[in-house]
Amino acid sequence: MSASNGRSGLTVMVLGADGYIGWPMAMHLSRLGHRVVAVDNLARRRWDREGGTYSLVPLRSMGQRVRRWEAVTGNQIVWRRADLRNAPAVNALFQEFRPHALVHFAEQRSAPFSMVDRRHAELTQVNNLVGTLNLLFAIRDQVPDCHLIKLGTMGEYGTPNIDIEEGYIDIEHNGRRDRLPFPKVPGSFYHLSKVHDSNNIHFATRAWGVRATDLNQGVVYGFETDDTVLHPDLNTRFDFDSIWGTALNRFCVQAAVGQPLTVYGKGGQTRGFLDIRDTMACITLALENPADRGECRVFNQFTEQFSVLQLAELIAKGRKAHGLDTTIAHVPNPRIELEEHYYNAKHQHLLDLGLQPHLLADTLLDSVIAMVEKRSDKVDAVLLEQPSVSWKTGGNEVWDRYSTHKTAGPPRAVRGEEAPQKAR
Amino acid sequence: MSASNGRSGLTVMVLGADGYIGWPMAMHLSRLGHRVVAVDNLARRRWDREGGTYSLVPLRSMGQRVRRWEAVTGNQIVWRRADLRNAPAVNALFQEFRPHALVHFAEQRSAPFSMVDRRHAELTQVNNLVGTLNLLFAIRDQVPDCHLIKLGTMGEYGTPNIDIEEGYIDIEHNGRRDRLPFPKVPGSFYHLSKVHDSNNIHFATRAWGVRATDLNQGVVYGFETDDTVLHPDLNTRFDFDSIWGTALNRFCVQAAVGQPLTVYGKGGQTRGFLDIRDTMACITLALENPADRGECRVFNQFTEQFSVLQLAELIAKGRKAHGLDTTIAHVPNPRIELEEHYYNAKHQHLLDLGLQPHLLADTLLDSVIAMVEKRSDKVDAVLLEQPSVSWKTGGNEVWDRYSTHKTAGPPRAVRGEEAPQKAR
Repeated sequence: MSASNGRSGLTVMVLGADGYIGWPMAMHLSRLGHRVVAVDNLARRRWDREGGTYSLVPLRSMGQRVRRWEAVTGNQIVWRRADLRNAPAVNALFQEFRPHALVHFAEQRSAPFSMVDRRHAELTQVNNLVGTLNLLFAIRDQVPDCHLIKLGTMGEYGTPNIDIEEGYIDIEHNGRRDRLPFPKVPGSFYHLSKVHDSNNIHFATRAWGVRATDLNQGVVYGFETDDTVLHPDLNTRFDFDSIWGTALNRFCVQAAVGQPLTVYGKGGQTRGFLDIRDTMACITLALENPADRGECRVFNQFTEQFSVLQLAELIAKGRKAHGLDTTIAHVPNPRIELEEHYYNAKHQHLLDLGLQPHLLADTLLDSVIAMVEKRSDKVDAVLLEQPSVSWKTGGNEVWDRYSTHKTAGPPRAVRGEEAPQKAR
Repeated sequence: MSASNGRSGLTVMVLGADGYIGWPMAMHLSRLGHRVVAVDNLARRRWDREGGTYSLVPLRSMGQRVRRWEAVTGNQIVWRRADLRNAPAVNALFQEFRPHALVHFAEQRSAPFSMVDRRHAELTQVNNLVGTLNLLFAIRDQVPDCHLIKLGTMGEYGTPNIDIEEGYIDIEHNGRRDRLPFPKVPGSFYHLSKVHDSNNIHFATRAWGVRATDLNQGVVYGFETDDTVLHPDLNTRFDFDSIWGTALNRFCVQAAVGQPLTVYGKGGQTRGFLDIRDTMACITLALENPADRGECRVFNQFTEQFSVLQLAELIAKGRKAHGLDTTIAHVPNPRIELEEHYYNAKHQHLLDLGLQPHLLADTLLDSVIAMVEKRSDKVDAVLLEQPSVSWKTGGNEVWDRYSTHKTAGPPRAVRGEEAPQKAR
């Protein structure tokens, strides 16, 4: 078996398949004819229950989702509950499925969550690091040809005053040259955990000949794909609170409930963004054009750059086209980050593989703003309150505010809970 | 209280004070008039017992050491057994002693150990990362002015084809400039763990204003300092096996028992080295000239560069001066590393602070070779057998060979064991 033996019919384990992107990804690859094994420990739903947060779009359980997917499309997705920190469980999955590729989302992915306190920082870093280590050893020992596609983040780079290259940079120094990993200055314990993973993966490619693609993804927006729209049971998450929601989602929800959009500081913080449908396309391109043995390929996965203030203005403009008013407010920045900086990140590799980007302005008009307006009565305004988790002093107050309030939250179906499932 | 309030009388926690450098460091700082709190979880002695390895120089327990130190010098060292992974224990230490500075050696520090198998890789990375995270949060929350002096390793950099700067490099790229962390390509899960720590510490200086000095240390040799020589009870470790011993120690022991020195591969692997007495001086210089608040200062801490083959030849020459014969053999390299490469690492900062280096050739002649010759009957030859832990396939065979053999090992006093102590 070879990881590069064709453009369909691959066995792909989607790790973190219950997440915002994981679930649409599982469906997308299943639709394309790949054999999808969906794996998750359901930690994200547990953190919602603990913290009092929820998806504004109602979610079904993984069991209900895969049954609905088969009913609607005739395609099967294998669903397995497992925790990647559990090495025997990881090894059992590899033995059973012998995957051609892994699409690895199975990490704690919120920067504010990682900054709440010591415990959240440790949880984030140990969870992410140990899960990824277990995957690397399982690849080495069981399926050395398996292609690891790991979701990283553009946040690994920080905001250097030079162009951001895709993973590596040619440095000339004192008359000599080398191509070295691009220096990274990540801005939270979460972002640091992704850098730790990137470094461990890079080593495994060099030492063991693992094939890896490290996708440094921008901020993903949108919640509808060709597959989620087939049936409400196939929905994916829409987070809007200050811990799990992106600034873009939070802004849309603030506007819908008549609050000003709260821009942190000056709002010059610039980041890369992409439509969730482009995420589907990018990961599929990486899967179907695998890295070579021993290669640690890095793609910057985003399509457009915006500053936070530009985002707020785009939303105001999008809402205006729907006849809706919006105000923008600047609030003290709870994060430690530059609010005015140079930002020019390369993102050519995926375009070279054939990516055809969607544009933010279109998606906002077509889907996000309309959905949020329709569901604005389901918004618990407490989850929008500022300030959010402080990078200096932590976020226990925010965590307490959210979790204490949750009894007054929306109904069970909207909170996105499911009955506990037996651990595998 | 300020961390920069004077050149003596500081309260310093030496973390990992039972280790090869930790114990001499505790004595050295105590001699200089600092109030030393020696902290260790005794993991290194446990790993010896588990793996069947031992120090060629007999070791006393920490309790015996600090009692002897006080009897000989009149100086007190406070000894506390604690595990840095235990956050409440770390917080209790901070509350009790409110340290001006931490000298942080408390990490699993063997590259081969980290490469034995998945479990050893996870143990190394989680142990090192969580301990350091707990220190950073304790500093932020309890003694924000505390100066963290962290022992890193030159191995964090790998062997780039450009000059290695001290922590940061000025990069000019596409007409713009920035000063960024020097790109790192570490060569084992141990070395990766030190990079993870460096990245976390760098973040804590930026986000919380922590003062940190990151000492990227070369390979340390020698086992005698001004303090260890005062009494045999004050000895520090001398490791010679293929898991814990450096190539230099292993070579000296191989020669003493009449074996050829086993150079891995071509032997062109070049590294920085320093005398343990220079380590004492460097850390003292860092302590008494602390980093500023928010500064993450990086010093490359070594004094001379040698290739592995040059080391072997130096030892042969040193032994010849004692009338002893030596042969050198090249064996297959169990590690993944370049065996011929450019290597030029800067190490100016500590010289600027006043460091006066000792030279390797002198120390070898004066102390190491003579001691090893004298104790060659205590050497368990099994611990010298090659190949050692393989970077490709791991080291369970080596671990089994060592640990199975240990019942035939040297007497208890030489194995360096001590009775279990009550955990704090």
